[in-house]
Amino acid sequence: MSDQAATITPDPAPPAPTGRPPKVSSRGRTAGPLANSNADGDDVPEFELFGTPGPRGLPPLTEFLDIWDVNMLKMRAEVNRQQHHTTLYNSDFLIVRRGQEFQIKITFNRPYNPSEDKFAVEFLIGSNPQFSKGTYIPVFPTKERQSSWAGRITETSNNVITMAITPAANCIVGKYRMFIAIVTPYGIRRTRREERNDIYVLFNPWVSADSVFLDDEVEREECVLNEMGIIYHGSFDDVAERTWNYGQFEYGVLDACLYIMDRSAMPIINRGDATKVVRQASAMLNSRDDDGVLMGNWTGDYTYGVAPTSWTGSTEILLNYSSSKMPVCYAQCWVYAAVFNTFLRCLGIPGRVVTNFFSAHDNDGNLKTDIILDENGRIDRARTRDSIWNYHCWNECFISRPDLPPGFGGWQAVDATPQETSDGMYRCGPASVRAIKHGQICYPFDAAFVFAEVNSDVVFYSRTKDGAMEPVKVNRTHVGRMILTKGAGDDTRREITNQYKFPENTPEERTMLEKADEYGCHREKSDPPQADVDVVIPSLEISVGDDFSLNLDFVNQSDQPRTVDAYVSGSVVYYTGVTSAEFLFRTPTVTIAPHKSEREVVEVQSRTYMKHLVEQGNLHFIVTGKVKETGHIATAMKVVILRTPKLSVKVTGVPRVSEEMLATVEFTNPFSFSLDDVYIRMEGPGLMAAQSKYYSLIPAGSSLVWAEIFTPRRAGATRLVACLDCSALRQVTGQASVTIEP
Amino acid sequence: MSDQAATITPDPAPPAPTGRPPKVSSRGRTAGPLANSNADGDDVPEFELFGTPGPRGLPPLTEFLDIWDVNMLKMRAEVNRQQHHTTLYNSDFLIVRRGQEFQIKITFNRPYNPSEDKFAVEFLIGSNPQFSKGTYIPVFPTKERQSSWAGRITETSNNVITMAITPAANCIVGKYRMFIAIVTPYGIRRTRREERNDIYVLFNPWVSADSVFLDDEVEREECVLNEMGIIYHGSFDDVAERTWNYGQFEYGVLDACLYIMDRSAMPIINRGDATKVVRQASAMLNSRDDDGVLMGNWTGDYTYGVAPTSWTGSTEILLNYSSSKMPVCYAQCWVYAAVFNTFLRCLGIPGRVVTNFFSAHDNDGNLKTDIILDENGRIDRARTRDSIWNYHCWNECFISRPDLPPGFGGWQAVDATPQETSDGMYRCGPASVRAIKHGQICYPFDAAFVFAEVNSDVVFYSRTKDGAMEPVKVNRTHVGRMILTKGAGDDTRREITNQYKFPENTPEERTMLEKADEYGCHREKSDPPQADVDVVIPSLEISVGDDFSLNLDFVNQSDQPRTVDAYVSGSVVYYTGVTSAEFLFRTPTVTIAPHKSEREVVEVQSRTYMKHLVEQGNLHFIVTGKVKETGHIATAMKVVILRTPKLSVKVTGVPRVSEEMLATVEFTNPFSFSLDDVYIRMEGPGLMAAQSKYYSLIPAGSSLVWAEIFTPRRAGATRLVACLDCSALRQVTGQASVTIEP
Repeated sequence: MSDQAATITPDPAPPAPTGRPPKVSSRGRTAGPLANSNADGDDVPEFELFGTPGPRGLPPLTEFLDIWDVNMLKMRAEVNRQQHHTTLYNSDFLIVRRGQEFQIKITFNRPYNPSEDKFAVEFLIGSNPQFSKGTYIPVFPTKERQSSWAGRITETSNNVITMAITPAANCIVGKYRMFIAIVTPYGIRRTRREERNDIYVLFNPWVSADSVFLDDEVEREECVLNEMGIIYHGSFDDVAERTWNYGQFEYGVLDACLYIMDRSAMPIINRGDATKVVRQASAMLNSRDDDGVLMGNWTGDYTYGVAPTSWTGSTEILLNYSSSKMPVCYAQCWVYAAVFNTFLRCLGIPGRVVTNFFSAHDNDGNLKTDIILDENGRIDRARTRDSIWNYHCWNECFISRPDLPPGFGGWQAVDATPQETSDGMYRCGPASVRAIKHGQICYPFDAAFVFAEVNSDVVFYSRTKDGAMEPVKVNRTHVGRMILTKGAGDDTRREITNQYKFPENTPEERTMLEKADEYGCHREKSDPPQADVDVVIPSLEISVGDDFSLNLDFVNQSDQPRTVDAYVSGSVVYYTGVTSAEFLFRTPTVTIAPHKSEREVVEVQSRTYMKHLVEQGNLHFIVTGKVKETGHIATAMKVVILRTPKLSVKVTGVPRVSEEMLATVEFTNPFSFSLDDVYIRMEGPGLMAAQSKYYSLIPAGSSLVWAEIFTPRRAGATRLVACLDCSALRQVTGQASVTIEP
Repeated sequence: MSDQAATITPDPAPPAPTGRPPKVSSRGRTAGPLANSNADGDDVPEFELFGTPGPRGLPPLTEFLDIWDVNMLKMRAEVNRQQHHTTLYNSDFLIVRRGQEFQIKITFNRPYNPSEDKFAVEFLIGSNPQFSKGTYIPVFPTKERQSSWAGRITETSNNVITMAITPAANCIVGKYRMFIAIVTPYGIRRTRREERNDIYVLFNPWVSADSVFLDDEVEREECVLNEMGIIYHGSFDDVAERTWNYGQFEYGVLDACLYIMDRSAMPIINRGDATKVVRQASAMLNSRDDDGVLMGNWTGDYTYGVAPTSWTGSTEILLNYSSSKMPVCYAQCWVYAAVFNTFLRCLGIPGRVVTNFFSAHDNDGNLKTDIILDENGRIDRARTRDSIWNYHCWNECFISRPDLPPGFGGWQAVDATPQETSDGMYRCGPASVRAIKHGQICYPFDAAFVFAEVNSDVVFYSRTKDGAMEPVKVNRTHVGRMILTKGAGDDTRREITNQYKFPENTPEERTMLEKADEYGCHREKSDPPQADVDVVIPSLEISVGDDFSLNLDFVNQSDQPRTVDAYVSGSVVYYTGVTSAEFLFRTPTVTIAPHKSEREVVEVQSRTYMKHLVEQGNLHFIVTGKVKETGHIATAMKVVILRTPKLSVKVTGVPRVSEEMLATVEFTNPFSFSLDDVYIRMEGPGLMAAQSKYYSLIPAGSSLVWAEIFTPRRAGATRLVACLDCSALRQVTGQASVTIEP
């Protein structure tokens, strides 16, 4: 054989194919494609024979029990939706919650005989449903043949039986197809698929076996059933509010939420796990990585979409995404949080929006935000790259976290705003709020990241000429100053800072910081000497366009005279703390007698800042200075939120379901310049879907009136929200409360 | 003013722009772009003046100290690379490890005067370097001006000083730019960027302060410095090996590894954290989501690339990726694991490839793999969708895990093979192996997933005609039968199953399972009655093309006679356990006397399986049967790995560095059919870069000889590996060991 060897010679290798290789199938990798879309479904056969038909052909299956009608009892007034807290959904389908019994009525062709007639009610979800994956569930009317969903017959009357079915408390959440299968000796005969009998199964905060169980009716009413929300913004000492229409019960919103999971190709089998659903949604609500729901934009240029400040509710966004299948433009943090909140409440996971004032960002669990000063104590803006957001909104959802040790269930922080550095992907959480409070940040997901958002230190460095840096002041209380959410059952603010943090300088706080340190969250260790001169800037309430005086109180706490060479810098900033333009710079030298205070007044002219104004009109003042006698550094920071004019919203007419009413929005341009390209939006849950009007010009001093007829759809207390938005003036909102009688 | 109101009317809204909105910049969102590429770098100014120049223009900076030369002491024989264990890298640059001192020599224009002359050695990485982010590090020659990297002068002689520098033990890993800055009263004067003075800083397993410290010299030599590896495959009772050239020291491989992180846009500031680096790489080594290194393909059709079985080493893949910037085709699990291992060892993270025999997959932390039987006990292939991989390869890396509580450091499982269901992205780990063993699967990352791969149960369900399913047999020992890795310092197999699992049926195992259960990893609870008849299939050694007898031993453990109606099914399977074709089906009825055993012999003709053969030639036999007397189910499963012919590899000549030698590969086609489109690959670390030859046809019975001249590059024991691959015959390998004298 080796004689032959010489004849086998290598050939030139065939040319490599060019371009991208074709998509590779899963053949050989998996036995079948993974079901990852609720919209898919290969239906079961109507007839399923046992064995092959004999020579006489098909046996006469029709001799056996037959189904004449199935009634899902899905009307709003019927028992299922009442008991399952789903009356508010504007939907044509039966919507129930898992772990809780619902009823259907089946009409046979003759009275049902339990000892002879065998049938199963089958529920299927996704393609390729399988019993052991929980995607195919047969429910039997007798206790002997138990499945994961319990079934029993509660009533029999002539040909009609009422069957009660309890979905497992951990079952997959989504839209199921329903069939009734009659078992005969020869085979199975099924009802045809009837789309109107499809059934949505949701999370159930009312049932203790569900991982989203929330044992407080007031909280449940708020965090699951309330469509109207308040989102806080502004500054910690000058909080502003914005009313938001979550609209989780609007027509099409539930389907849009399921579409979001389908679009992310989330495996169907994971959709019963609230933690996984929430984590997936946090990735999917922003468009980064995955063409998710909302595209972020913080530039001030919103030509290609709707300005983030212009939205008044979530439904327009969700319906737009599910119909266009393209990211909706544009969002900033509160829009992400608001739409995420709609997603949570719509699926039955208790959810709320929280606002953290002075939120540290983009430093990846690093607990320092750096401000670089030169040798004289003046801020070096070129080298100061970190920013602290004036506020940041994220979400909390209530989950028992069976994947964690006991004690970390309850509220979980989750955030859909794209972070630059969270674990390589644009998503964050769910992170146990309790774990954050106790510094137990080793548990998934992204707890260290949220911990840094509320616990970072602001470190002032002095940079010498040869590049060496020395920390000269550490402010340990600036970041995470206050965390707010809307109160349950009322419209008040509820401060929840103590859910995230122990009070400063308590033993508990120290223990917590040590714990976090063990897990790699290192605080700035150095403790530079405290200056004995404090700078205090009292709070201010200023409207856009006002001239005003900024007071700087220099307080000498020593028993020696002190002189401070101060640098006062005023800039227009984005709400992210990023500086747009510096419009003011002063270098006063202030001498203060022992134990006295000296007020330095800085006059601010509106013309200096008006031309630089961006977005939400935040002015940021930073005072740094060196105490001559000691060389210590004194600092102060103040965010001034410029007040905007209000929109007047009025509702007139008889407030009764299905009676026409009139909404009137009025606005007067108070400025000496005209406003261009102005959009006004208005909506209200149960009252009116989102509407908008465009005004190409509102001249200085002019007023506009927009009147709109609407018809309330349901009874109860609700609000009409309106918002005016143009590039020169944002965050102008107004609202009217109204209680609709049945 | 309200009179004017009536004149303001809304306009039709301007048309919405069509198409995709433009990319949005980060303006307003962050103060500057986040540095996420090691290849980027904006260099520092050569002159940096303090204040503005006076009327007399630039002060004469040249009067001060000047740098004539910098010597990085980077040659292989010099102290730095010797002490830092980096002599093997084929690179023109200085490569050191962090937390350990290295030296450079600086030649000034005159003797250095410590009391007058001030300078700093500056290291910069990525764009926009900042002191507080650890991306700009000035190192001073005196103790008084300490930075995060220590500096000291160890020798002064005339104009030359030797400076010793110790990078922080947690510093960023990558390629730094180096400058020397002379500080004068007027400003800073810097050396120009000289690329040849760039320096690579790597992880350091030799230093206890580094999170990858591994306190065992034999392990370090193996898991960091050994380029030659063995990867196990086949079946747990018939283990096969494949030698692999990791090639982590080959020219260009280190740059390719840094490119992988750049390509994933991993923030520079995270690259000192071994856990984050490893997690990012596990996402980035597969092409899913992110155009990563390797495209997976399990279909058997590799027309558009190289068959996974054809590769002999990692370097070709990594160099191809970094030059083409496109995913390389194709990989299966051992290719992912092997290339990942190269990445780990190249960056200095101790790494090894492990093989888990019978690995449960794609069931998302669910601890069940389901096999569905019909009412007679016959396997229902249409409904059985789960598969168990005959084997699966992943990686372990050694990290102290400062992010976790004490006790979970050490080996960490990490996997780059794209899993269908791991946390919504195609990555997995690092998961503490110790946490997996103890069922503490609540810690990041993906521990529950790896736990399921080694601990799942195989559950046999009996499906009745109406769709109800009942577990009839649970096999708790099949999955995770054996876990192997190459021994450190030798070429033996090392079984590490006990690192992942306690012995079956011990109290420790029960405690572990209870723990895992607490964290949501639920095992099959039911305990169906054990059949008193066992089926045993003795091991077999069969070559491709053999006819053979399959013995089935039915063992009756009762004191009654037993009759089994058995179903014997033989299929060709992928190594993923996915069935390609069933080629054998028998239904013997076996009667066994009390306490006796009965052998049933099934004859298997090669013609029945040869035409269906895929890939790695695995035959899978499954026997199921119902014991007539008891109704209990007996089962047995056996994977038969068909042996392939060997390649003969011989090395001749004088084995000495830089002396020419000859490698000869020989192969004879033992089959009665010809082999088409055959590739042979050969390579060896320190001996020869990957080479390949293509043969369009090898007729039946023909032989080929491929002789190749090569020149060993370095001394030591090594191997030459060769692999033959064509669609009809895969996994044909051969190797020759050789020790090269200096």
